Amino acid sequence: MTSGFERGAAFVEGEYVPIAEARIPLVDVGFTRSDVTYDVVAVWDGAFFRLEDHLERFERGCARLRLRSPHDRAATTKILLDLVRMSGLREAYVEVICTRGMSRGGSRDPRDFDNRFYAYAIPYVWILRPEDPATGMDAVIARTVRRIPGDSVDPTVKNYQWGDFTRGLYEAYERGGRYPILLDQAGNITEGAGYNLFAVVGERLLTPASGTLEGITRRTVLELAAEAGIRAEAVDLDEDLFRTAREIFATSTAGGVMPVTSLDGEPIGDGRAGPMTTLLRERYWRAHREPRYRTPVDY
Amino acid sequence: MTSGFERGAAFVEGEYVPIAEARIPLVDVGFTRSDVTYDVVAVWDGAFFRLEDHLERFERGCARLRLRSPHDRAATTKILLDLVRMSGLREAYVEVICTRGMSRGGSRDPRDFDNRFYAYAIPYVWILRPEDPATGMDAVIARTVRRIPGDSVDPTVKNYQWGDFTRGLYEAYERGGRYPILLDQAGNITEGAGYNLFAVVGERLLTPASGTLEGITRRTVLELAAEAGIRAEAVDLDEDLFRTAREIFATSTAGGVMPVTSLDGEPIGDGRAGPMTTLLRERYWRAHREPRYRTPVDY
Repeated sequence: MTSGFERGAAFVEGEYVPIAEARIPLVDVGFTRSDVTYDVVAVWDGAFFRLEDHLERFERGCARLRLRSPHDRAATTKILLDLVRMSGLREAYVEVICTRGMSRGGSRDPRDFDNRFYAYAIPYVWILRPEDPATGMDAVIARTVRRIPGDSVDPTVKNYQWGDFTRGLYEAYERGGRYPILLDQAGNITEGAGYNLFAVVGERLLTPASGTLEGITRRTVLELAAEAGIRAEAVDLDEDLFRTAREIFATSTAGGVMPVTSLDGEPIGDGRAGPMTTLLRERYWRAHREPRYRTPVDY
Repeated sequence: MTSGFERGAAFVEGEYVPIAEARIPLVDVGFTRSDVTYDVVAVWDGAFFRLEDHLERFERGCARLRLRSPHDRAATTKILLDLVRMSGLREAYVEVICTRGMSRGGSRDPRDFDNRFYAYAIPYVWILRPEDPATGMDAVIARTVRRIPGDSVDPTVKNYQWGDFTRGLYEAYERGGRYPILLDQAGNITEGAGYNLFAVVGERLLTPASGTLEGITRRTVLELAAEAGIRAEAVDLDEDLFRTAREIFATSTAGGVMPVTSLDGEPIGDGRAGPMTTLLRERYWRAHREPRYRTPVDY
């Protein structure tokens, strides 16, 4: 560990700095136009989980937005490993960011901008605190806001345009919950503020097919479900069907598999994590020990 | 003028710095969640134009997003006047920004965040260069992207969530223009990447009634039109009607009244600024000399 980096480390403008000192240019259009993509990778027990999959998605997002990171896969990997090593964190939340950056000579043509790269590692973030394995998310289906449609902003390119999620968070807190779920214009379930959703309906495990980020935790759960012989399907998941679920859970790199135990104030099932959720959560954390998913940090 | 501030001045974290040195925290959710509102005021011939109207809109935007700027109207005014005075700029583009800022203690509740304020002044920005008064914007109605709907992100609260506009800019440049115009889900004209739109149809001056920012330049044009006896109306402006326009122009604090002289590669009228556009542009710049609109800078 590097002294002063205990609370996290950042890589900005070519230098490693403590997270509290990390600054970006005020006029980077990553800020002033939210012209940016990013990815989040978890470090668990001293190793990155599915690092290549996250970096592949990040590169695909950059390509879709026509951003050119100044660092290739190998250089990016080295920076992320450095950040975690410097922070000394065994469990970390690691973010990698590419912005459109700065205009050259005042041009408004986005093809002419000088793209920028930032990254940081901080202690692991839990969207749902794991103190009690039966504790779950108190979710709220937002009534005042709809998810930004894909023909405006592509939800499969991880982005910071969270205006809809922030409205959803306000609504959730004001209605006594903490976890908003957003519908699309057609009334189908999409995702929440940083998490994908799954519902156990009959014997099927359902997750929205479109209008959401293609989460790596979501993908891991679909793979683990297949291995466990669970019939999992990506579908158009309308609100009425969603409400018939025996179990609901959310997935995120920031917390893994997280039971939703109430919806709009009403308990789901018996109001505790259900058996399929519990099984998949256990398998999810067990997968973190598999060498094929691990990129160890050399502390 | 303060030495070193010739290219612009910024106010960040309580200090005045040259624009090139202005930095914001990497972990401000104004960046990482685009949880922010802002406003832009022009300085022309040494005076702010309609400063109170801009600050009123900024305060309304903060209230709508439930952001609390740490500075009241008087303190904000002083900061903006200081910035322009330090830069020495007689014509400036001045931006005032309030972000959700930083989480206190890791809470995800947006009500618990420590909101931040930033501002800067740079040389006046022209969306359309004014070299030749007959030169106009080569606009393109975007086919690949729609404006983010108001039930996802409120377009009347000035925001940085420009993913749709950036897609529109790429499409425009690739189709040989530079100025995208976005339709809403119903096929009505909304706005472009930083500008409102007007169309002269028959004897009427039309502008979209909803789905757009309520621009101060737009409002000024509506007031000037009324004074000139022009019949101006805010309507649902569908694409077909828009295409019948004899004249089209755009409005923005960054350029004023700007003729659109071609649409999808076809000339509007005779391909030059039309008479109503020219009249309103002249009156717009003349209004900048009226004391009721001016807040002079004490250089």
